[in-house]
Amino acid sequence: MAGKTDHALERMVFFSDAVFAIAITLLVIELHAPELPRSSSDAAQLQALAQLVPHFVSFAISFAVIGMFWMGHHRAFSLAGHYSSKVLGWNLLLLGVIAFMPFVTAYLSSNIFQRVPAIFYCLTMLAAALLNLKVNGTATSPPMVDEKASPETIAYVRQRGISVVLGSASAVALAFVMPAFCQAGLMSIPLWLRLLAWRDRKRVRA
Amino acid sequence: MAGKTDHALERMVFFSDAVFAIAITLLVIELHAPELPRSSSDAAQLQALAQLVPHFVSFAISFAVIGMFWMGHHRAFSLAGHYSSKVLGWNLLLLGVIAFMPFVTAYLSSNIFQRVPAIFYCLTMLAAALLNLKVNGTATSPPMVDEKASPETIAYVRQRGISVVLGSASAVALAFVMPAFCQAGLMSIPLWLRLLAWRDRKRVRA
Amino acid sequence: MAGKTDHALERMVFFSDAVFAIAITLLVIELHAPELPRSSSDAAQLQALAQLVPHFVSFAISFAVIGMFWMGHHRAFSLAGHYSSKVLGWNLLLLGVIAFMPFVTAYLSSNIFQRVPAIFYCLTMLAAALLNLKVNGTATSPPMVDEKASPETIAYVRQRGISVVLGSASAVALAFVMPAFCQAGLMSIPLWLRLLAWRDRKRVRA
Amino acid sequence: MAGKTDHALERMVFFSDAVFAIAITLLVIELHAPELPRSSSDAAQLQALAQLVPHFVSFAISFAVIGMFWMGHHRAFSLAGHYSSKVLGWNLLLLGVIAFMPFVTAYLSSNIFQRVPAIFYCLTMLAAALLNLKVNGTATSPPMVDEKASPETIAYVRQRGISVVLGSASAVALAFVMPAFCQAGLMSIPLWLRLLAWRDRKRVRA
Repeated sequence: MAGKTDHALERMVFFSDAVFAIAITLLVIELHAPELPRSSSDAAQLQALAQLVPHFVSFAISFAVIGMFWMGHHRAFSLAGHYSSKVLGWNLLLLGVIAFMPFVTAYLSSNIFQRVPAIFYCLTMLAAALLNLKVNGTATSPPMVDEKASPETIAYVRQRGISVVLGSASAVALAFVMPAFCQAGLMSIPLWLRLLAWRDRKRVRA
Repeated sequence: MAGKTDHALERMVFFSDAVFAIAITLLVIELHAPELPRSSSDAAQLQALAQLVPHFVSFAISFAVIGMFWMGHHRAFSLAGHYSSKVLGWNLLLLGVIAFMPFVTAYLSSNIFQRVPAIFYCLTMLAAALLNLKVNGTATSPPMVDEKASPETIAYVRQRGISVVLGSASAVALAFVMPAFCQAGLMSIPLWLRLLAWRDRKRVRA
Repeated sequence: MAGKTDHALERMVFFSDAVFAIAITLLVIELHAPELPRSSSDAAQLQALAQLVPHFVSFAISFAVIGMFWMGHHRAFSLAGHYSSKVLGWNLLLLGVIAFMPFVTAYLSSNIFQRVPAIFYCLTMLAAALLNLKVNGTATSPPMVDEKASPETIAYVRQRGISVVLGSASAVALAFVMPAFCQAGLMSIPLWLRLLAWRDRKRVRA
Repeated sequence: MAGKTDHALERMVFFSDAVFAIAITLLVIELHAPELPRSSSDAAQLQALAQLVPHFVSFAISFAVIGMFWMGHHRAFSLAGHYSSKVLGWNLLLLGVIAFMPFVTAYLSSNIFQRVPAIFYCLTMLAAALLNLKVNGTATSPPMVDEKASPETIAYVRQRGISVVLGSASAVALAFVMPAFCQAGLMSIPLWLRLLAWRDRKRVRA
């Protein structure tokens, strides 16, 4: 174990893992299998599948998004060594937004290329990003943080948290002008991350 | 670890956590994404979302309610150090009522402002509150309680359990006269908690 | 921890707990909330709820049945101290039947008082009972059993396993003659348990 | 515990177990219980059940397939002793394909005996097999592998991983010519396993 971990902390982390795992797996429930008559040609079947492509893409993107939030949570809490009841409420709010993701995914993929669903999806992601920043920040600060956690890793968790917020905000902005590609805003996350790391290095040198 | 914990106790707590996590995440299944034609205006989309507001509110409230019961369970069992088979049946009953919450949430939000669904919802909550009181009371009493658990925290768990029962009973009462706002009865929980804490302090002084 | 437990054993137990927890919570998905017009009277709402009573009863019974199998699994594996790959396949089969329970529950409660669904439900339960006997027997025998496990508890696990098989078989028999009350066959479990305990005590004396 | 296990590794394994468990249990959601009028004869009920047989068979096969992947994951990670962030992304991809299985199962069983759904199902299985090979290979190689893990078991994990890929590829090939029996390709897995073991033994001797 990376540090001495409280039992209450472990149970909270476990509960969070379970909600992340259920939300990520429930995404598939919104995929409805087409049922064609027995005499259908291969072409008809392929066409039925082709109509589901927006749903498949949404499933994949939302799977990646929830996976990304889980990995951030995973990394931040591996640096926590103590339990604090202060994080419980914020963590529950974060889980609530994550549990809401299957709905916004279904809404977006049923109304592809439209502005309102795109904005709604990206705003949900922004809410998750802000709560993620708060929760992971609390987990990597006293009194929760493990005394033996490396300052570099803690700095990385924060930079990543801020980058996800900036990437989600970019996605919201994109949703207004190019609803169909709003999720591309997330691809700016590595850029923000690099920018923040560069700024921090400059600060340390100064 | 807060105290010496039996393996059987851990497994029961784990199973409970899993049921809480699944029930809280299944709430989203009752939210059905609207599917509008491609040519829909932004206004039509916003209107479709607006019609879902009662469902969103119910999702949020039920998420908070299940979260609250989970937090109480979490707090009580962090004080338990030994396993007792006496708690198994009651805990299973509590989990049964929690697993029932997605149904009553869907029923309430599909029949908003009506008396019977409101009473049904609040009675379910009252059942959960009573079972919660029983389970958490058993977990924080001999033979289950950890010998090193602080008497103040145990007293707090009991006060909170009673407050949740009184708050749920208030919600049931409200459901008869103001079905639309029955869940507001839950907002009386902090008041009951303060009242009970004040009574206990008075008792200690006497 | 009651005994020295292998990591592989822990992970298998964890996986089983998760499947039990998901199956027990998925039961609620088959309950469909009625949606009545806004102007409905309280009487209409109560009538809509009354029509769901068979579904509520089925939910409660199946919750208790899955809970009972989980408790048996819980008890048996708390006596196991070593991992054996021999149990993996049988345990997976048991979990498959448990995961099938939400379907048979929905089928039974949608076709109440009919013979075929009742027999189908009870046969599923019998399959679970037989696999439960096999799995729990393997967990409480060498090489899996913990050397420090008490022989009385092991004997109890076996008696209980056999009683559940006999109770399920009684339910199957009842399903042929009184489909509506087939699950009442389960109520014979405590009788079988007492009978087996009495036989064993007699044997020990002889 | 088989070896010294990092906390981060444990949490990743736990998350994977949860996704496997949810995906395997969600298979049942695609089984829709028939609802017949009260006056239906036993024959009508049996006929309704008979029509569900393809769905039952698909449920059983997919349960076995996900169970097989879980068992492989279970075996491989019981040989891992250290955490490496390199495995995180590949593991998430594997879980994404596993979470997709309930959809392809529903699609296959709703369009039984047709070529496109059979190919789609088997390609999904092949994707899972390839990711499984990558993930389990990473878990049983430095820096993740436990130093005390036996080389024979590691060799077995690899042989099994390759056999599952070959078996899935056989299933894809079969799907083109005999869509109804494509899953029979999986039955070649033990043959591939024996072949690979024989080749490895020959190599060792040489």
